[in-house]
Amino acid sequence: MLYAVTLLLPLSAFVGNAPDAASASRVDQSGIAMSAVARNVNMGKLQAGYLFPEIGRRRTAYIEANPNTRPIISLGIGDTTLPVPEHILNGLKAGAAKLGTKEGYTGYGPEQGIAQLRSKIAKNLYDDKIDPSEVFVSDGSKCDIGRLQMMFGSSTKTAVQDPSYPVYVDTSVIMGQTGLMNQERKQYENIVYMPCNPGNNWFPDLKNTPRADIIYFCSPNNPTGAAASRAQLTELVNWANKMGSIIVFDAAYAPFIRSPDVPKSIFEIPGARTCSIEVNSFSKYAGFTGVRLGWTVVPKELTFADGSPVAADYNRIMCTAFNGASNIVQSGVLAALDPEGLAEIKALAEIKVMIDYYMENARILKETMLDIGMEVHGGDNAPYIFVGLKGQSSWDMFSKILSEAQVVTIPGAGFGPGGEGFLRLSAFAPRDSCIEACKRLRTVMKP
Amino acid sequence: MLYAVTLLLPLSAFVGNAPDAASASRVDQSGIAMSAVARNVNMGKLQAGYLFPEIGRRRTAYIEANPNTRPIISLGIGDTTLPVPEHILNGLKAGAAKLGTKEGYTGYGPEQGIAQLRSKIAKNLYDDKIDPSEVFVSDGSKCDIGRLQMMFGSSTKTAVQDPSYPVYVDTSVIMGQTGLMNQERKQYENIVYMPCNPGNNWFPDLKNTPRADIIYFCSPNNPTGAAASRAQLTELVNWANKMGSIIVFDAAYAPFIRSPDVPKSIFEIPGARTCSIEVNSFSKYAGFTGVRLGWTVVPKELTFADGSPVAADYNRIMCTAFNGASNIVQSGVLAALDPEGLAEIKALAEIKVMIDYYMENARILKETMLDIGMEVHGGDNAPYIFVGLKGQSSWDMFSKILSEAQVVTIPGAGFGPGGEGFLRLSAFAPRDSCIEACKRLRTVMKP
Repeated sequence: MLYAVTLLLPLSAFVGNAPDAASASRVDQSGIAMSAVARNVNMGKLQAGYLFPEIGRRRTAYIEANPNTRPIISLGIGDTTLPVPEHILNGLKAGAAKLGTKEGYTGYGPEQGIAQLRSKIAKNLYDDKIDPSEVFVSDGSKCDIGRLQMMFGSSTKTAVQDPSYPVYVDTSVIMGQTGLMNQERKQYENIVYMPCNPGNNWFPDLKNTPRADIIYFCSPNNPTGAAASRAQLTELVNWANKMGSIIVFDAAYAPFIRSPDVPKSIFEIPGARTCSIEVNSFSKYAGFTGVRLGWTVVPKELTFADGSPVAADYNRIMCTAFNGASNIVQSGVLAALDPEGLAEIKALAEIKVMIDYYMENARILKETMLDIGMEVHGGDNAPYIFVGLKGQSSWDMFSKILSEAQVVTIPGAGFGPGGEGFLRLSAFAPRDSCIEACKRLRTVMKP
Repeated sequence: MLYAVTLLLPLSAFVGNAPDAASASRVDQSGIAMSAVARNVNMGKLQAGYLFPEIGRRRTAYIEANPNTRPIISLGIGDTTLPVPEHILNGLKAGAAKLGTKEGYTGYGPEQGIAQLRSKIAKNLYDDKIDPSEVFVSDGSKCDIGRLQMMFGSSTKTAVQDPSYPVYVDTSVIMGQTGLMNQERKQYENIVYMPCNPGNNWFPDLKNTPRADIIYFCSPNNPTGAAASRAQLTELVNWANKMGSIIVFDAAYAPFIRSPDVPKSIFEIPGARTCSIEVNSFSKYAGFTGVRLGWTVVPKELTFADGSPVAADYNRIMCTAFNGASNIVQSGVLAALDPEGLAEIKALAEIKVMIDYYMENARILKETMLDIGMEVHGGDNAPYIFVGLKGQSSWDMFSKILSEAQVVTIPGAGFGPGGEGFLRLSAFAPRDSCIEACKRLRTVMKP
């Protein structure tokens, strides 16, 4: 136990949990000391918990109340389920193995990512039309959105598609950019909600949208599955340039795009470099949801109103509140993006098989919903099916499906008031689960 | 190239860099469009770049100006250099390998960390005196400090040891908790700087320190190498409870503690649970600086002034702006903390060998400095030597040593005004580099 003594805390080192009440400044009713530090008022503005853990809690509560239930199938959180393809897996294994050697060991890496990886992303995913220095490698898009918000600060005004991925709104609230939630409209004050629905072909009516500083735009969209066309994104970019806004373009679902008319990157659109940041992720490319790797592109031309480059401030944030993505993970992606020889073709072939697998799930879900007679959106260029409920409440439908079919879905209202009346089905389940879920849904869903 | 077409952007998709000037709201002198988004004023308050990249830039500039220089030795950034020990390495490899199997594959994990890992940290590093639910696993302490600051918001008042790790002050500035830097005092307005120096045995004079909301306290300290005793930490905890402050205790250097009187965790001190958060890291335990794994402990008893639990808000931040540490990395640490059988002993033995290796470097550096006749601090319970320069400027000494001895150090002034007149030497270099650096330093350093 010599080592335990040296490295770990001694058994006798700890004291009990009783607070030192004599010296505490204040105590609550039960005698527990309270700090005098004011809670961040912005944290208090947030409504309920973050959406996806909330879904998990309801699922767990159902199981606890119904211990003998048949196995629950999840069409909920957009989580991948297929194993990591072989070539990329070998890259990850090699990335770990080399840390055991004197020559291969690396410590703190560049906070912006390994230079070779930044180059490969620029070359192989953007055809060298962006510069490697514009790529900031990270542990994921969600984390990058948090860091972008930290950079933007508390005085910017946010616009979001409604419905949208909840992180855009929640981080805006946390940073103090918003007022309280208006309980009637179910919208936070000082956020521009841009309705996207079947009536406008899932694209906002920009002519009647007030100016915002930062426009969060996700295409293919989570949760609606709508993929913006080249003409639509051109309209968006022109509008942002005209208004002097910055688009944060979330391209995490780009690998699912099948239509030739749908851009995979905002930087395919003329003028985007003066008004756009792109966040992206390897999560869906290669089953990296748990492995964690994303990147953000900040073009050199993009400036704030004072002419200072946005990239300089983002670099400062990445250096100050981040320390680089795991070197093991970066090694794995380096292998996946290896442009030379057979290895490359193999990795891409494996990724294609993986993406096609999920898209076949999407097709099965979509056909089932159409067959039942539901109103169906998405699923063509995205792994999400957005089902219209014709006036029924989305949380009610979520609960009904969980208790009667033992299938987890996501209520559209969780993505903003514009999502009410819709249900999101994810195409990431294993095939047999997907087919079984469809069988069960047929018994409980009615148009 | 079928797959490239499907997955990557088509070669013809991109447009040139020319901005769409006709629709841009404003253009600068060179005709580049500028957004109308105001730069975050807090980003503009930051002085120069983050310290460690700045050191790297000066090193690179020296090499470019002196292309034929002998190899430069780094005693600068506190980066590990020894390979990851075998047992833990096997854990990392296994963590990667299982992602290739249907049974072993995992996607989005709990944002707070794998339950088993939270339990093992609580049990094996805190002797079960904290609850697993109080452990939040992450990609590192630096990132956790950023997330804690995001949670605290813009209205809290920060106190720091002076000198200290620059992330505490820089993130306070970014969040808007401070005023401008007072160029005379080299201190930001609205931060409480607590001088720590040989005169007060590196421990702040708390009786004459104004109250702050959040006290960042690092022990063993980066950069001074000072390790606070049990009596000192007891004084700190009592003061925090009396003032209703929250201590953010940075224990990243705990594995280097050798003195029995120096606590390895703030939770060894009575009363700490009502006033303390502990950030910690696997970086130095097992050479994980590039692998990325840290954790933060937020006790259940810790509340804000309104009685609301701090842990609830921290959990919300972790769920909203973070997505869990890499599952591969968590698997590796799980192996390292495996409590059963020989495997455990082996991992701990390997870690001890690694820590001892760095501490022997620290001894060599310390003896060399003493032999030269310098004033020397730290190095007993920490991998840093803090060398007093007797009135010489720390940036001047940094430059002199770089140009005359080709050794990179860190100027004390980079850690705050209280660090002026000191130089930090890191003990993480390979042994032969450490010995060679000592030879070189003997030729250029004079007391």
